[in-house]
Amino acid sequence: MQHPSPPLWPHIRSEPGPRIPLFSVRLDWLENPRTREVLQRLVLETPDWVNVVALTVAGRVVMVRQFRFGVGKITTEIPGGIVDPGETSGEAARRELLEETGYTTEEWEYLGAVEANPAIQNNLCHHWLARNVVKNGQMALGDGEDIMVMEMTLEELKAEIREGRLLHSLALSALGRVFDLWG
Amino acid sequence: MQHPSPPLWPHIRSEPGPRIPLFSVRLDWLENPRTREVLQRLVLETPDWVNVVALTVAGRVVMVRQFRFGVGKITTEIPGGIVDPGETSGEAARRELLEETGYTTEEWEYLGAVEANPAIQNNLCHHWLARNVVKNGQMALGDGEDIMVMEMTLEELKAEIREGRLLHSLALSALGRVFDLWG
Repeated sequence: MQHPSPPLWPHIRSEPGPRIPLFSVRLDWLENPRTREVLQRLVLETPDWVNVVALTVAGRVVMVRQFRFGVGKITTEIPGGIVDPGETSGEAARRELLEETGYTTEEWEYLGAVEANPAIQNNLCHHWLARNVVKNGQMALGDGEDIMVMEMTLEELKAEIREGRLLHSLALSALGRVFDLWG
Repeated sequence: MQHPSPPLWPHIRSEPGPRIPLFSVRLDWLENPRTREVLQRLVLETPDWVNVVALTVAGRVVMVRQFRFGVGKITTEIPGGIVDPGETSGEAARRELLEETGYTTEEWEYLGAVEANPAIQNNLCHHWLARNVVKNGQMALGDGEDIMVMEMTLEELKAEIREGRLLHSLALSALGRVFDLWG
């Protein structure tokens, strides 16, 4: 069945907003086609992100624990980060897995991408699956990172979710492509 | 197995950042316990969000199409919005479903919450399941909204994902609690 779509909003103009870390703030003026009213709307421009479901030969998942500034807590997540300029998402996935965990592999599979938040942000988060990863590389943490790496079974991972340490929507999005988290 | 955690980052001070729409920008100064360096970090403070998987008696899903300012495209999503001050997430779910779609029901089930982005934001997105919804209410769109409502089968919903119109990480997070989207 063909479902109808509302019209696009005519773009009146844009201007840069205030400077904040991590994002380029853009203010757009758009006309609501339903009301003809011109409204100012916020866009947080940012590069694409990437995260990685990394499985060991034994089928364990490589997880990272770190202090997260937004929620002010230690969280459990999968490795990931920002796609650097000139990098493909696959290159960023390899680099972030190595830098954050020291694990590597040659077996990579693209799981797809999601919009981080299409209402506010312009970027995608790309999900990658890394199979048969081995801890044979050198971690290289940035100044803003203090990360602990651990291998978890699926049962341990589900306990992290249940106990509230693994709630990151984008980590769960990637893990949900590989595991039945809610069944 | 008990996995180790890194230490919390000592909080040095906070101050309000520049004013932007939708968020209260907060700048925190935190000490990285690994390096003893004090770093400035961004937090986008915002109320919790809510979204709703609404199923009709026939098992169809109530979906919304709207222009999304972040990606500059018409997207397909589930109904949702911001939890208003004084509201519970359940009250917000009922209100958003009614306002955005005109559908109501008395059969509600909490599906859990995810962190929108624990690295940057302080809020949760609460997922609700609404069963046996009926279109017997009055839509009440805000000035900033122009929404089309439609009922989709699971197959139609999967086509929206495949064809790139339904990529919102938080919509997929809620739908993934109810349906096997990737199997």
